[in-house]
Amino acid sequence: MTQSVVGPVVVIGAGLLGASVGAVLTSAGERVQLRDRVVSHARVAATLGAGTLTPVPEGDVRLVVVAVPPTALASVVAEALLTYPAAVVTDIGSVKGTVLRELREDFPDVNLARYVGSHPMAGSHLSGPVTARADLFVDRTWVITPHDAVLPETLDRVRMLAQICGGRLVVMDPQEHDAAVARVSHLPHLMSVLMADHLLQVPTEHLGLAGQGVRDVTRIAGSDPNLWEQILTTNAHALRPELVEVRDRLDHMINALDDPASTAAVRTVLEGARAGTQRIPGKHGAPPVDYAQVVVEIPDAPGALAQLFADISEAGVNIEDISIEHDPVRRVGSLSLAVQPQRRDELVTLMDESGWRVT
Amino acid sequence: MTQSVVGPVVVIGAGLLGASVGAVLTSAGERVQLRDRVVSHARVAATLGAGTLTPVPEGDVRLVVVAVPPTALASVVAEALLTYPAAVVTDIGSVKGTVLRELREDFPDVNLARYVGSHPMAGSHLSGPVTARADLFVDRTWVITPHDAVLPETLDRVRMLAQICGGRLVVMDPQEHDAAVARVSHLPHLMSVLMADHLLQVPTEHLGLAGQGVRDVTRIAGSDPNLWEQILTTNAHALRPELVEVRDRLDHMINALDDPASTAAVRTVLEGARAGTQRIPGKHGAPPVDYAQVVVEIPDAPGALAQLFADISEAGVNIEDISIEHDPVRRVGSLSLAVQPQRRDELVTLMDESGWRVT
Repeated sequence: MTQSVVGPVVVIGAGLLGASVGAVLTSAGERVQLRDRVVSHARVAATLGAGTLTPVPEGDVRLVVVAVPPTALASVVAEALLTYPAAVVTDIGSVKGTVLRELREDFPDVNLARYVGSHPMAGSHLSGPVTARADLFVDRTWVITPHDAVLPETLDRVRMLAQICGGRLVVMDPQEHDAAVARVSHLPHLMSVLMADHLLQVPTEHLGLAGQGVRDVTRIAGSDPNLWEQILTTNAHALRPELVEVRDRLDHMINALDDPASTAAVRTVLEGARAGTQRIPGKHGAPPVDYAQVVVEIPDAPGALAQLFADISEAGVNIEDISIEHDPVRRVGSLSLAVQPQRRDELVTLMDESGWRVT
Repeated sequence: MTQSVVGPVVVIGAGLLGASVGAVLTSAGERVQLRDRVVSHARVAATLGAGTLTPVPEGDVRLVVVAVPPTALASVVAEALLTYPAAVVTDIGSVKGTVLRELREDFPDVNLARYVGSHPMAGSHLSGPVTARADLFVDRTWVITPHDAVLPETLDRVRMLAQICGGRLVVMDPQEHDAAVARVSHLPHLMSVLMADHLLQVPTEHLGLAGQGVRDVTRIAGSDPNLWEQILTTNAHALRPELVEVRDRLDHMINALDDPASTAAVRTVLEGARAGTQRIPGKHGAPPVDYAQVVVEIPDAPGALAQLFADISEAGVNIEDISIEHDPVRRVGSLSLAVQPQRRDELVTLMDESGWRVT
């Protein structure tokens, strides 16, 4: 066992994030005690190598990581500051300013010198089985959000935690952080939700004309309502002004569509939108690249994708992104392959020669 | 050359759709004259086998297919009805009730007995090179939108056109059609546009926290503003009430987020949205299926996808859908594979055995 750097540690909340932090720290040689309101959750995480249920004497604990649902964060952080008098406490929830405000308002007697919030950006929009992973945070952004009353050694210890987990440190004001996630995560989620919710009003025979566009726009609206209720309401403060701006822009569009003389206003919004999509950074934090698209028709049958990618592989062309548009009736799909623009012609020739229908 | 069934035909507008109709009819043995405001467009289409530029005597023309941009449809249809006294005229634009209304209002003296609108659902959201294809309409929905004044032989000839093109005929009232596309296509487009337009207001450092969700929601907002200005303004009549409903629902959300006691209202919308996503029909017009998702980590390198699909192919498991979520920093991606639920375990085992990291 290597030398302890930040521990002994208590992790409160043994879900994906908490258990993953526990697993990293345990494999780094730290002593980790797992706590969860539901004891069986902590027990499962312990069997996965995320720590132990054996209590550490409260005065010995040097770091507490709070990984509970958003609405419980402030009270659990306050409790931890009181319970573990020598510990630095951090929470790893996805909303930061709200927790700080709740701590100040609801727990005015609790000294926050030993607390700082952080947000490892390591969740996933993917559904499906997820388990605790010791490499969940490697090279991911880990935001630390200092406040006025925080002690330097508090920051140091949470920085060390982020480093042990392999995260890339970003220091941001708590309100700034919440504004950022409101804009690039919570607002898009709500737009997707509004569209998907509206589908409940659409007659079934109209839904038969649905294409790929509405599927893309509404994908994230299929996410867990329980988690998102908490995220949206917890960050309501930062989200609301964004929603009001979009509402005003929507009113502007409604008015423009009312007036046949206002097509220029519609056009301006459409052009702004296209420019907006180009502001989103590209893969791996690199600047956006205009990839060339090569579209290939593929039969909807086992092995077709394998054959296609085998043919592509021969040319050594890297596929930057892929998406399938399904033909609503024929059992074929259109596979859209994004490649570096200078590799496009090569790929088209290769596909042609291999007998694929490039459309 | 086979016997003429619907022709001689004049196709007005030699873009993707017009040229594709011309190509189908030409290969079916029909005489096709191509017309385009820009003569070089017609010439290019002719070299691609979509017809000829040689004029057919106006009295001999039996079918005119109008494939011009949305705002020009009514006037070109009216002109065609006057120019070709023996012809049935159809337009293949994406908005139908508006064209009929414009014809009635702006050309009250033109008899519409020889006109009926239609909408082959054969466009594509995919960017990239598109060329006229004789099989563009095969097994695609082809909506025909009759009105009160139409003659039976007009309907018959347009039905025959759709059949020659291989389309699957759906008969719908023009207003009903426009309401359907407003709901499942134009409204989602506008929601995507509003979100993407809002990104212009977001500070660059905040955009660095963008994940896959905002990318999906804003994808279609990157489409051609010129085309969409016309589509949205032409169908404003049907689109506007949908926008007003969404605006009211957005106001409802803004109010709910204002009031800490209203989290139940937020939850109701989130649950409605999830149910809404499940109403979208599945692939190939089949009922929605809850596919199982298997998520595999893939290095961002040439050949990785080929190797993966080769391994999958061995098992004979059909992949129903794929999507990639990129790690914003590490050069890896998470490939999400949708499979029939009963094939899931088999695929996971196979991936494991082949050395892929299933997450």
